This record gives sequence, structure tokens and C-alpha cells, in this order.
Amino acid sequence: MNSSQPKNQFRDLIDRQVSGYSLEQMFYTDPAIFEHDMQRVVFKQWLLVDHESRISSRGDFFVVEIAGDEIIIVRDSNDSINAFYNTCRHRGSKVCLNKQGNRKVFVCPYHAWCYNLDGSLRGAPLMGADFNKNEYGLHECHVRTYEGLIFVCLSEASPPDFDEQVSRMKPFMELHDLSNAKIAHRHSWRLQCNWKLVMENFFECYHCLTSHPELSNVHSKAKYKAFGSSPSSAMPEALAAFEPELRAWRQHATSLGYTTDQWGDDWTSQSMQSAQRLPINFNANTLSETRDGKLASTLMGKFSVCDGGSTGVTFNPFSTLLMPNDHAMIFRFTPISAEVSDVEIVWMVDKHAQEGVDYDRDNLIWLWYETTEQDGEITENNHAGVRSRRYKPGPYSQQEEAIKMLSKWYLRLIG
Amino acid sequence: MNSSQPKNQFRDLIDRQVSGYSLEQMFYTDPAIFEHDMQRVVFKQWLLVDHESRISSRGDFFVVEIAGDEIIIVRDSNDSINAFYNTCRHRGSKVCLNKQGNRKVFVCPYHAWCYNLDGSLRGAPLMGADFNKNEYGLHECHVRTYEGLIFVCLSEASPPDFDEQVSRMKPFMELHDLSNAKIAHRHSWRLQCNWKLVMENFFECYHCLTSHPELSNVHSKAKYKAFGSSPSSAMPEALAAFEPELRAWRQHATSLGYTTDQWGDDWTSQSMQSAQRLPINFNANTLSETRDGKLASTLMGKFSVCDGGSTGVTFNPFSTLLMPNDHAMIFRFTPISAEVSDVEIVWMVDKHAQEGVDYDRDNLIWLWYETTEQDGEITENNHAGVRSRRYKPGPYSQQEEAIKMLSKWYLRLIG
Amino acid sequence: MNSSQPKNQFRDLIDRQVSGYSLEQMFYTDPAIFEHDMQRVVFKQWLLVDHESRISSRGDFFVVEIAGDEIIIVRDSNDSINAFYNTCRHRGSKVCLNKQGNRKVFVCPYHAWCYNLDGSLRGAPLMGADFNKNEYGLHECHVRTYEGLIFVCLSEASPPDFDEQVSRMKPFMELHDLSNAKIAHRHSWRLQCNWKLVMENFFECYHCLTSHPELSNVHSKAKYKAFGSSPSSAMPEALAAFEPELRAWRQHATSLGYTTDQWGDDWTSQSMQSAQRLPINFNANTLSETRDGKLASTLMGKFSVCDGGSTGVTFNPFSTLLMPNDHAMIFRFTPISAEVSDVEIVWMVDKHAQEGVDYDRDNLIWLWYETTEQDGEITENNHAGVRSRRYKPGPYSQQEEAIKMLSKWYLRLIG
Repeated sequence: MNSSQPKNQFRDLIDRQVSGYSLEQMFYTDPAIFEHDMQRVVFKQWLLVDHESRISSRGDFFVVEIAGDEIIIVRDSNDSINAFYNTCRHRGSKVCLNKQGNRKVFVCPYHAWCYNLDGSLRGAPLMGADFNKNEYGLHECHVRTYEGLIFVCLSEASPPDFDEQVSRMKPFMELHDLSNAKIAHRHSWRLQCNWKLVMENFFECYHCLTSHPELSNVHSKAKYKAFGSSPSSAMPEALAAFEPELRAWRQHATSLGYTTDQWGDDWTSQSMQSAQRLPINFNANTLSETRDGKLASTLMGKFSVCDGGSTGVTFNPFSTLLMPNDHAMIFRFTPISAEVSDVEIVWMVDKHAQEGVDYDRDNLIWLWYETTEQDGEITENNHAGVRSRRYKPGPYSQQEEAIKMLSKWYLRLIG
Repeated sequence: MNSSQPKNQFRDLIDRQVSGYSLEQMFYTDPAIFEHDMQRVVFKQWLLVDHESRISSRGDFFVVEIAGDEIIIVRDSNDSINAFYNTCRHRGSKVCLNKQGNRKVFVCPYHAWCYNLDGSLRGAPLMGADFNKNEYGLHECHVRTYEGLIFVCLSEASPPDFDEQVSRMKPFMELHDLSNAKIAHRHSWRLQCNWKLVMENFFECYHCLTSHPELSNVHSKAKYKAFGSSPSSAMPEALAAFEPELRAWRQHATSLGYTTDQWGDDWTSQSMQSAQRLPINFNANTLSETRDGKLASTLMGKFSVCDGGSTGVTFNPFSTLLMPNDHAMIFRFTPISAEVSDVEIVWMVDKHAQEGVDYDRDNLIWLWYETTEQDGEITENNHAGVRSRRYKPGPYSQQEEAIKMLSKWYLRLIG
Repeated sequence: MNSSQPKNQFRDLIDRQVSGYSLEQMFYTDPAIFEHDMQRVVFKQWLLVDHESRISSRGDFFVVEIAGDEIIIVRDSNDSINAFYNTCRHRGSKVCLNKQGNRKVFVCPYHAWCYNLDGSLRGAPLMGADFNKNEYGLHECHVRTYEGLIFVCLSEASPPDFDEQVSRMKPFMELHDLSNAKIAHRHSWRLQCNWKLVMENFFECYHCLTSHPELSNVHSKAKYKAFGSSPSSAMPEALAAFEPELRAWRQHATSLGYTTDQWGDDWTSQSMQSAQRLPINFNANTLSETRDGKLASTLMGKFSVCDGGSTGVTFNPFSTLLMPNDHAMIFRFTPISAEVSDVEIVWMVDKHAQEGVDYDRDNLIWLWYETTEQDGEITENNHAGVRSRRYKPGPYSQQEEAIKMLSKWYLRLIG
């Protein structure tokens, strides 16, 4: 840190956090820390917000809420996708009142300032001779797409190197070919809790046996013990117990030509990225994350024979994909305010799959809808308990290695 | 500013506002600025709160909420009208729990401290020999009436000179004779927005064509282009286009003996007062602000023949009258908290007019009820957009000259 | 105050309060003062929370909310009752999601950390070799019982001397023998007001004639005039008027062998304790606080003949008992946040009394249910009025001597 940087008002607080323990109460409740989090952590990530098929035609748009701000994502011509802040450059009104739709132009409902789909100001009546409309386009939000996925970055400065961040995922992403996917369903949960509690919930499976009977039943229990926290945090004995199943599955998958790689960044990285392929439950011949273990839809991408694996791709802790062979899910974790967070799942299938013929929607969404319902309740109870005057940071277990790292990563970024 | 005045904590913020642009976000959202606004701007105005006919008999009262405070307005004997803060001098309870009614005395519902209609403490049991009940009347609020209108001023110090403020309106007010009016209807909107956004909405018509189809249809479009912002902000070409219609109407009105004057204070004034008479839509032979352009009720005051004009009287930006020949409307804009405001319209007709015979209530209220519904939605969307992290003050158009002035007036008063 | 104590941030505010007047607005609305109140006043009391019969079997528990914290009260073996903060020592989740029930152990719903009924950590999976589970019991809350009543103290330091506080009540408590009582009914009111307004309401009867027709009708009016504020604040003339009734009743009660004592601490005490026995309405032959003055249930404790008296025991201003001969009521006043408070009444009868045979529930609860409904409304109106910018502390009457003392007590404790 060079001497010209402003003093960090949370310096002492940050420095006294103990590695391997949850954070002090303020980190989960204080509005000033929340804003600091946004500037230092959240706005410095490429946040995965949706799949391109949501806006397949020119002029299709949707609006996403992040940390109290609204971002309009719109398809312009030639597959270009643009993103703008939903605030008029005239007097600040919301420009777009719908959550999704189709527009030829965006006309502010207040004074009819009219914006092109590239955000440029097309017309503003009676602004006088000195007015240079080139200076009054909608505020742009960084936006990029990769394999059908839309990412935004809310940094006012330069965003992280997008190509570098996504190119690392190539071996995994090309297997699933999400550019030929379509959205089958989406569901969003607004939770009364801090965003860090959402993360801490998602990136450990220490709670799975207690809280997620469906998930624990579908997946290999030995796997969750070995890799529940993260691929890099396996305990020797749990790893050993899972080893035969893992080795057998890897042999099978490799014989089919599919990667079985796994890797993860450490806490000194910008985005704690990770990717891995693992069997769902190879000993039980489970093909997909369904009640009966059978496929939920037609195989996607390069899969010609199902290998019973599931691919996990984490672009950053806010943006994860889980992908069996036959469907894919975006997990989007979004801070709203100090004590409110959104969780959204977008379920995708092959673009040719037909509902009622190739897939049943209830069957498709069952496992993670139920699991996320459970996690929502858990996380809100966690938040409520953390608000106690007697709450003190407690120690993470051996199965919470990943969130121990997440905590170090977070403290480094805000420090 | 002399050296004994306390330093203004918002000095730097105020100084960096750019003339001709909307204000920075904090002015619309910050609770500390809201309180500063109240002390420096709102409590230094004579706020028009209602028409006397609401409390026509001795003991009639109503309660009005301003900036979180409740003021009781009550008619005492001999046409005197008094105003008090709704907080008991004993332990602070609300003295009056109803929004309107009739009382011989106000008895606090807690310990029965009893107040006369002039606010003096009539009785308080068991207060001991040293208690001087003369010291414990209800806290008075400055109140005055003029031509049937009730005004309050919440200043703890001396209020502005009331007579000076209203006497300027005499040529307009005596034409309509509101002392012989009665209330036909009232409607109140509680809006999720800062009070300054309500003002900025009302004092420009740059948005009218976009947002108000009914209003734009009833009124002369040429007039709105010329005078939509304010009489003093006309653009040469718009003014020229409206000139023939205006001249013809002025000739007609003058021939009937009605004033056609127009004037407005500038931003260095205490209250930005203005008054004017203009045709509603003279070329279309429009007589009143109704769907068919015909009268909504019997003519009021000194009007014997309708001149198709409408009188606007602004006592201050919180208190405006709009008056065709046959009815009058109070527009009351009231700050409640940093992000909540009230808008109320009180529709008045001649006191002899009978509902169902001389006027139809729906017909009477139609135009401004619809228009204010639209403005409520607009203003809330404006507020929501201003809360964006990327909101920046934007430039006012040529049709927003009046609110450019309002902004200068506001910044001067709080500075 | 010695020099090592931290400076009290509210010193100037406290010092400028005027004895005999209600407090300044901030004391009723400010969140920082609320927290200060909790640390200096509320958490230094033994708060009466319920009757043991609510948790009569091993594993029975209930959860009580105090100042935003949740305390689990649970019966362990051998009549021992324990109290814990409802926050897991792992990552802070609520451990207990129900308001009452029965548990063999408390299993945190998140990661299944399992706590014994004495709060000790029974098991926590996969915490590694270095983890000492003895260090991770639930945070204890001080808890004691006396004559069937459960008290908690939320102090992090040593609580006040419990035995000393309750032993003073012995002559009164043994008469009613609450250890052989059972709960007949309970009702809780969540009020939009500061806790001090709840106290100020309960500890004076200056408002009773105005606000409580039922209460004033059942009880002797002469008594309320004499002792309405507190036994120690009687005015000479009111005392004289009540003297014959009091003397006659005392003679009667004494002849039956029942105490007729009365005493009360002054404002320099830790807890402003008091206790007294007084007739309900001896001249009217009233036996209990019922519509017809007859008994509501069978006689409790040592009462063999009803003396028409009622016993009041105040352990501290948050914890009061009112007890006619045939039933007993806990009045529990609980701060929740700066502008929210809970009031709860627990009605108790002899443990052998049967509903529908020995007592009618509606008849039993009638008087204080109605009275507390009325007080809830009064107190919320008081709070709303205190929020006025013009609210100023007002003088207490001669019948508010007790709350004058309460105020001095409060200011001393927070000072």
C-alpha cells in the first residue's frame, strides 16, 4: 500500500480478526462496512448475471439489482450486449420501469430523454445550443459475455482482465457448450442476511448432512466428506475413503474423453476461482441430480455418453456454475444491503430440449430448489443469531477450509 | 453571515453545487440535510394548509402533519383560528388522537390535562401550589388566515411578514373570493421521495407532453411550451407562437374587467412568490379544466362571464392555488421525512354550489386527480433513480428555468 | 467515579435534566442512549421472566427476548434451571428456532453442534485435535429461581446479590406460596414506545380515573388518591381520607394473621424494590379484582379466609407481582429497542385449581387485560407525542411522586 492511499477506517477492526474463525458481528451488520465491501470486493469482480438466451432478440433487455443499484442489460445489434445504470442523465429518474422486455430505444418516463440501445443519448428536447448530447449517454457498466454467459463489473475504474479470468475455464466450459443452452427456469430468494453469510453457507458442506437430506441422498456421502468444503481442503482419511470411487469414475470419464481436472485459486488471488469435475454418486450409478438418479434432460454440449459427473466452475465467490451432463445451473449471490442478500438460480438445458418431452421442469429443479430453500432458512437464522450481543467469532471445522480461505481473501481485499 | 453564527456543516457541499444542474444525491436522501432543510427553508414559510370552511363551527379542528410534527388547527370564538403542537405540556402525549372533529376543550387522553381552544391550560389536577398553569399552554404554532385560507409557520422565531406576503396577491385573490368557497373534495398522496423532487416536478412542464396526456389535451400546447416552466422563463420562439392566443385572450378578459397580470419573484426572495392569469385553451374555447372544456361548477367570486382563464397563485413553493373561473384547488406539498413527502389537493367551489346539481365531483376533480396520480409515480421513480451510486446532477432544459431558480433559492436559504 | 472509568458520553445531557420533570426527547428515542440504558440499568437487574411451571419437566424450555437478544431458559435435571444466549458458539446461528418446547439436547440447525441442557458442548464434528470443547459451551446468562419464579440477569460481570434482593420479599411471598402456583393465562403486548414510558405509565395512577374505568370501579378511589403513585408518596389530605378504610382493613387482615406491611426503596437503591399489602376495596367488600368483586379462583398459599387485600411486590421496575388472595400476576416490562417495548402479564392460580370448575379464564384476566390494553394505547400515544420537535420535559404532579423517584434512580444509574 503506498502512502497516497486514504487511511482505511476499518484498519484496526480488520487486523484483529483471527484466522480460522468467523468474523466479528460488525462485518455482518454494519452499513458502512457494507459500502466498503462493495467498493473493495464486489465491484471488483466480473459478476455472472444471466444467460444470453434471456435476451435473444435485438432490443431484449432485463434489469438486475446489485447492492441497491439497478443495471439494465440489453442486446444491441450484432450480438453485442450492453449494460447501463438505470438512472437518467437529466435528473436521475429510473429510465426503465420494467424488469424485462423489449425496446427499440429507452425513453425516460419523466421528460422523454431518449437513449439508443448502446446507451448514447439520441434526443433530449429543448436543451439549448450549448448542450452536447455526446456527453450524456447512460452511465455504462462493464459487460462481457463468454460461452453464452453475461458478466458485469460495477467498478468505476478498469475491471479485472476478463479474458484471463474466463480462459482458465475453457476445458470445462467447452465440454458443456452453454452457448447452445436455453433457460428452463429461474428462482430468486431475497434473504434477510449479510452476503458473507450466503457465501459461508455455499462454500462448505459441513452442514449438508444436517440440513440437506435430498442433497446428501443424491450425492456420494464419501465425496462430501472428502471434498465438501473444497477440492483443496480434503482431509487425508476422508480422501482415502473416497479414493476408490473417485479413481473408478476418473477412469470411466477419461475413457469417454472428458476431463477430470480440478484446481482452485488460493486467498491471495483476485477472485478465488476454481473448477473441477467430480462424480455425483458413481457407486450408485447416478447420472444426474434427480430423485431417481436418471437424466433430467438431453445431454448437453460434447457429452455423447453420460459419465455421471458434475462440473463446478466458480468465476468468483458470487458466480458459480454447477453442471451435470444434462443441465447447468447458474448460482448468483448478490449483496443488496448490509442485512439483505439475493440468491438466484437459473436452470439451463440444451436449446433443443423441449419441456414436457425432453425434460420435466419439476424434476429438473427439484434438488437445488429444495436445497436452496433450506439454505435460505439456515442463513437467515445464522444472521439473526449473529446479531446477539454475545455472538463471538467461532472456530471453523476441518470441513470449512474453503470458507477459512474465503475469509482471508475477503480481509485481504478490504484491507 | 456574521462571525457569531454557527458554522454550516454543509458549507462545502452547498458550495460545490453547479447552477443549472440538479442537486447531488445527498440533498435528496440524507436525514441530516432534511432536518437542516426544515429549519432553514420549510419552517420559514407561511404554509397554506387548508380552507377555513373545513372548520366552520366553533370547536371544529383538524390535524396536519408537517415534517413529522402534528399541528392542531382549531376554530375558537369570533372567527379566530389557532394552531398548536400536538404534544401535552405534562409528559408529551398526543393531546388529540383524531384527525378532525369538534371539541369544546382538548383533554389529554393520558392524565386529563385540559386545554382551552386558545391553547391555554384550563386545568391540571394535583399539580401543587407552585404550579403556574399560565406557563403550560400548548406550544403555539404561528397561524394566519387570508381570504378563507389557513396558513401556518413552524418557526420558533418570528415568522415572515404575513400581510406583506398575501397583500401582493390581492388583485388575483379578490377575483376568486375564496372566503365564499367551500370544500368539494380532497385527496392526499404519500410519496416515497424527497420533497425537493416534488417541487421540481410541479414547477416545470417539460414533462407534461410525455406524462400528462389529459393535461396536455385540455390545455393549450403552445402555452405550455411558452410558459410551462414559469411565466418568467419563456423562450422567444415559443413565446412568439403563443403570442396571438395570449393577446386575444387578454383582450377578452380585460374587456370583462378581469386582470391578466403576471409576475414572479426571483431566487433572492424569501418565498419565490408568483401570480398570473393565463387562458386554459382560448383557441379551443375551453372554459374550465374539464374533459369537454365546459364549466365544472357555478362561477365563483367576481366572475359573471367566464373568460376561460386560470389563475395561478404561489405563496411559496409549498403552497399553490390553481383557479379556473368555477373552482379552485389548493396544492399542498409537505415534507415528511428525507424520503417521504405528502401531496394534497383540496378542491373548492362556490359555497352555494350543490353537488349533483351544480357540479359533479368526478368531473370536477378529474384532470388534476389523474395528473397528480401520474406525477406521484414519476416522482417516486425519480427518487429511486437518484439513489443510484452513479446518479450525477444533470443539466436542466430551457423549459426548466423555474426549477433552476428554485434550486438557487433553496441553496441560498440553506447556505 | 474514579478517574479510570471511561468518560460518559451522555454526561452533559444527564446533568441538565431537571428533577421533577419528564426527560428530554433523546432519552426516549435515541438508539445510543438505549444501548447505554441496557448496559447501565437493565442488564444490572434480576429480571423476572416467568413461572417455573412453564417448564415443569426436564428438557422443557422457552425463549425470552430482551433488548434484541434471545435467552433460552431450560430445565435441566434436579430442578436446576439454566439460561443461555441463543447463538451458536460455532458461527453464531440461532441454536433454537422454537419459542418453547422440550429438548433432550439443543442441536444447532446449521452444523449440528450439540449442546447439553447445562449449555456445555456435547459434540461438534470434525473440529480437529486442538479443539477443546470445554471452551465452547453456550454463553451463559445468570439465572436464579425463588418461590417458583425465574429471574435472569444479562450482566457480563457479576449480577446483584440475588438472595439479598429476594429475601426482603419473604413475608409477602410466603403468604402467596407461588411455588405451588400454575400458569392460567399469558398475554404479551409489543408496543411502539421506549421502555421508560412503559415504566412511567405503570408506576403512577394519576391517569387511572381518566383512562381505566374498570380499574377505578373495582378499586377504592380513596386508595388510589392516597397511594396511587406509591405507598411512600401519599398526600396528607388523600391519606387522611383513606385512613378509616385502611385502618379497618388492617385490623381485619391482622386478625386473620396476614401481614399489612408496606415499604419501598428510594432512588439511591440498585433496584427500587417495594412491597405492600393494601385492600382492594374494603368498604365495598371486594374480595378480588373481578367484575362482581367475588373471588376469581380458589384461595392460594396461606390464605384460608379472604381478607380482600392485594399484595404488590416489585423486585425492580421491570418485574412486578400483583396478588389478590386467589391469583397472582407477573407484570414483565421488557425493552426491545429504542422505540419498541414488550409488556407481558402471566396470570397464575393455585396449582390444584381447574379451569371451568374453580376459575373462569375470562373472569380471571378481565381487569388487567382491559387495563393493559388501555395502557398500551396510552403509552404509544405518549411516545408519538414525545417525538414532536416542540416536546419539552413537563412537571410531574403530586400523584407522580413514584416516577419522579424512578427518574432520579434512572439518571443516577446511567450517570
